[in-house]
Amino acid sequence: MKKVAIGQAGGPTAVINATLAGFVKEIERDHSLLFIQNGYEGLAHGTYLDGDKEMLGRIQLHRDVPGACLGSGRFPLTDEQIENGVRLLHAHGVEVLVFIGGNGTMEALAKVEAEARRQNISLQVLGLPKTVDNDLGGTDHAPGFGSSARYVAQATRDMSRDLASMQNFEKVRVLETMGRNAGWLAAASGLLQEYEEEGPHFIAIPERSIQSDRLLDNVNTALNRFGYATIVVSEGVSLGKTGQVAREKIGGRAVLGGISNEIARFLKSELNVMTRAELLGMNQRSFSAVVSDVDREEAYLVGSVGGKWIREGVSSVMVSIQRNKHSRYSVRMRPIELKKVVAAGERVMPDAFIEDRKRYFEWLKPLIGEEIIAYPPPLQRTEVYVD
Amino acid sequence: MKKVAIGQAGGPTAVINATLAGFVKEIERDHSLLFIQNGYEGLAHGTYLDGDKEMLGRIQLHRDVPGACLGSGRFPLTDEQIENGVRLLHAHGVEVLVFIGGNGTMEALAKVEAEARRQNISLQVLGLPKTVDNDLGGTDHAPGFGSSARYVAQATRDMSRDLASMQNFEKVRVLETMGRNAGWLAAASGLLQEYEEEGPHFIAIPERSIQSDRLLDNVNTALNRFGYATIVVSEGVSLGKTGQVAREKIGGRAVLGGISNEIARFLKSELNVMTRAELLGMNQRSFSAVVSDVDREEAYLVGSVGGKWIREGVSSVMVSIQRNKHSRYSVRMRPIELKKVVAAGERVMPDAFIEDRKRYFEWLKPLIGEEIIAYPPPLQRTEVYVD
Repeated sequence: MKKVAIGQAGGPTAVINATLAGFVKEIERDHSLLFIQNGYEGLAHGTYLDGDKEMLGRIQLHRDVPGACLGSGRFPLTDEQIENGVRLLHAHGVEVLVFIGGNGTMEALAKVEAEARRQNISLQVLGLPKTVDNDLGGTDHAPGFGSSARYVAQATRDMSRDLASMQNFEKVRVLETMGRNAGWLAAASGLLQEYEEEGPHFIAIPERSIQSDRLLDNVNTALNRFGYATIVVSEGVSLGKTGQVAREKIGGRAVLGGISNEIARFLKSELNVMTRAELLGMNQRSFSAVVSDVDREEAYLVGSVGGKWIREGVSSVMVSIQRNKHSRYSVRMRPIELKKVVAAGERVMPDAFIEDRKRYFEWLKPLIGEEIIAYPPPLQRTEVYVD
Repeated sequence: MKKVAIGQAGGPTAVINATLAGFVKEIERDHSLLFIQNGYEGLAHGTYLDGDKEMLGRIQLHRDVPGACLGSGRFPLTDEQIENGVRLLHAHGVEVLVFIGGNGTMEALAKVEAEARRQNISLQVLGLPKTVDNDLGGTDHAPGFGSSARYVAQATRDMSRDLASMQNFEKVRVLETMGRNAGWLAAASGLLQEYEEEGPHFIAIPERSIQSDRLLDNVNTALNRFGYATIVVSEGVSLGKTGQVAREKIGGRAVLGGISNEIARFLKSELNVMTRAELLGMNQRSFSAVVSDVDREEAYLVGSVGGKWIREGVSSVMVSIQRNKHSRYSVRMRPIELKKVVAAGERVMPDAFIEDRKRYFEWLKPLIGEEIIAYPPPLQRTEVYVD
């Protein structure tokens, strides 16, 4: 019976609370719990919620609710805050620290662990993965990504059908996805494309710089052949040699978003056609109506496996998801050292996936869950009477 | 056995093809069909698709696909184009003209009918309603709106939970809905709000001008009480006395969208907190993953009832949906004269709904279809340890 503190950090996902619920359900029978509020801010300031019986029950009610129910957020820790945070954990009798998060979260967790060692305090630490960007190293993929990819693929297909029917008014739509420096989500936009006519007709990912002449060529070809063009860009791309990502800095973190507007302006000025930029926005990490059932189950499982490992004394690792090499999709959970996760940095798409989209889609398909009904081919516009 | 021409016009909805499918299924057994491409542009230029057996089958395959499968669009008709369009219909033996659309579509349809009379050509005309904005007169509501309202309500609730958990980073989110000059969709954003803490904390609709001091008061109150604020604004609102709706004109039509950016800038400068504008965007009229089952069924029914009326010789009307006065929601279809629809103009929200949100939600709830699971109350942040 140890005292376990758990927090959620970074941008939420639609399934981050499932991981929390899975962990709590597993650990609550023989350990006591403290919940850290608002991510590392709560760690720094010692603002915890008591894990009494009522609270434990309320956590389970949030299993399918988006957002991080403990409060998450972004809070770059100073050395003093880490020192103070460790002291506070110890003062409250905490022997185990668990955080659900992405790259930044795992890096901070490793620092907290090092500080505990420095203070000669015994602290078992465990990371539980989450990210919609899928840029976390050491794991096949992370909970949150599958649901986000499902949303991006469906929204792109639907907006492209919508645009196709509005082509005497609007010609080009530039959809912008999340992803920071990794193209996983932007590339997922093409997953449901079954016909050449359907968008996306061009996808830009941060792993490759946009060749503006290639962009123009692709848009022109789509306009000529189909009458409209759907473009998908990742928030982390930049336009040509000179273009830079539109960003502002908040609390030391670059806020991406807006490159679609820049590209739309560029296309409008080059082609003189009605062009609209559209951010796929916060739905990507929060829209509960299109969650992948596989993603939700894995998110819960990551939590409950983490709980088991805590009981077994495992420390200094993150729970990773590894794909079994069978023809039918299945996974196993494996510990990966936190320092390896940190060393891996932001994981971008491998060349093999960038160069062979089919291969990427084969890898991606199981993650988005329940099969999505295929659309029929667009109606041909050939057999027409013209007077 | 008459020759019937049908087209789709204006912005598509996620269920506009269900109306087409319902109409075609009903009429195809004893009439021949021509499909008009790209809305009134196809009428003006006589670009039709032949309603052969293969085409009739393909229409049915599009029943649940968003976008207008015949091509829709915006095309303001000139008198010459109307004259030519009528001549072309007649030349192709068309005796019946049907259009699926909103206010602008019905107005154009009435003009086409008048021109046919002027040319002494017998033309039976019928309008089938669609709009996500719900601003069409003479009908309780129109197909397309229920699905859009369902999406807006769910996206708002989820984005608000997401924001709540990010409040140490982001304080205010300004969500922008469609709706043009009517607030139906923006007001629908609060449908799933069950707790005072949850957003939306302020809703701005075009029927009332925004009092900027009231907006600031509401945001400040939410920030103080809950730590964040979710604001929903309709694309058609303006800010204060001086502010005007951000718009550009394309083909004579004002393109709305962008007021959320203006309001976000205003709040940021007044309150100095991280504020993000987010357009709910094209999903509102195209996202097939959250379609209301009631809306989809009514959309189909509107089409098939229209088909029956064509057989009975009904003309110069639009199919309207009327709500029966029973405790359980049910509707009947009634013809309403096209000239009455035109005279009604854009239907805004009645004062009774603006002043009594509960009454509006009672009216709205059946339209969004299948019940949406309620969320638990947000976790209280009171019983905390602070060192």
